[in-house]
Amino acid sequence: MTAQIYPQLDPKLDLVLERIIDVPRELVWKVWTTPEHLKPWFCPSPWKTIDCEIDLRPGGIFRTTMQSPEGENFPNLGCYLEIIPNERLVWTDALQPGFRPSPDPNHPFGFFTAIVTMETHGTGTKYRATAIHGNETNRKKHEDMGFHEGWGTALDQLVVYVKKNLL
Amino acid sequence: MTAQIYPQLDPKLDLVLERIIDVPRELVWKVWTTPEHLKPWFCPSPWKTIDCEIDLRPGGIFRTTMQSPEGENFPNLGCYLEIIPNERLVWTDALQPGFRPSPDPNHPFGFFTAIVTMETHGTGTKYRATAIHGNETNRKKHEDMGFHEGWGTALDQLVVYVKKNLL
Repeated sequence: MTAQIYPQLDPKLDLVLERIIDVPRELVWKVWTTPEHLKPWFCPSPWKTIDCEIDLRPGGIFRTTMQSPEGENFPNLGCYLEIIPNERLVWTDALQPGFRPSPDPNHPFGFFTAIVTMETHGTGTKYRATAIHGNETNRKKHEDMGFHEGWGTALDQLVVYVKKNLL
Repeated sequence: MTAQIYPQLDPKLDLVLERIIDVPRELVWKVWTTPEHLKPWFCPSPWKTIDCEIDLRPGGIFRTTMQSPEGENFPNLGCYLEIIPNERLVWTDALQPGFRPSPDPNHPFGFFTAIVTMETHGTGTKYRATAIHGNETNRKKHEDMGFHEGWGTALDQLVVYVKKNLL
């Protein structure tokens, strides 16, 4: 039942960020799955993550609220699909908690499935974040919103946060 | 990890078919999860299910092709979300295999999550099929396509098939 289907990557539809980082994967898992440890690094500064709710099971809620420097709030609501501790975390905003389809599948903040994987690499971690989309329009929208820069900056912040607080 | 989130039913968004049937739930499970046993009853006659592919794991494919009496083919593609043998089967067409969002979330054949549950009831089964939608438009479309009649007729056929072939 936990057999994995790695995404069949399609460069026309998918975005990938892969990097080796020098913190252990158990801590990467921890900061991705605990609101207290997710909020400090999740949004590229000067944006902030001001709220986060996590119910870590398939069908469970993954909700965050980002705040712009001007004070505008942007809520994100999704649901977890697959959870393999310290290894692989999958969620989507195409479904809401309880696996209910999103009311507006064309909403501007996403409509993708995210797969974050972490493998031990020496004393650090080989980290990979993949965003898979259903069509080229959504992929393009996500790329133009700054997927690589945004997720890359968040990852830098994650590493700094882990080193400072959890190591 | 197998903790269940029963759908928070919303009459504006959901469709439910519940019935007591006099076949054991293990056989209901079997005919829902084996292509050979699904094809004979799945489509209300005179429609036919001419093809079926099942990879029974979260993220795995659930694909069927229905054929109208005039010979026109209607493919359906979805992915499994939750699998609790003899108890609960969840899949959606909002995501495709590997949890990839559907290319066209407004396609006319669905965009819903289905939850089929079976509980032992005497020597038979309390059977429930629930279709949860993201908005009222999709619920209405599904109801107008004949959800209750279609799923009801298929269930009649399921019972006849099980009694004739598996009991």
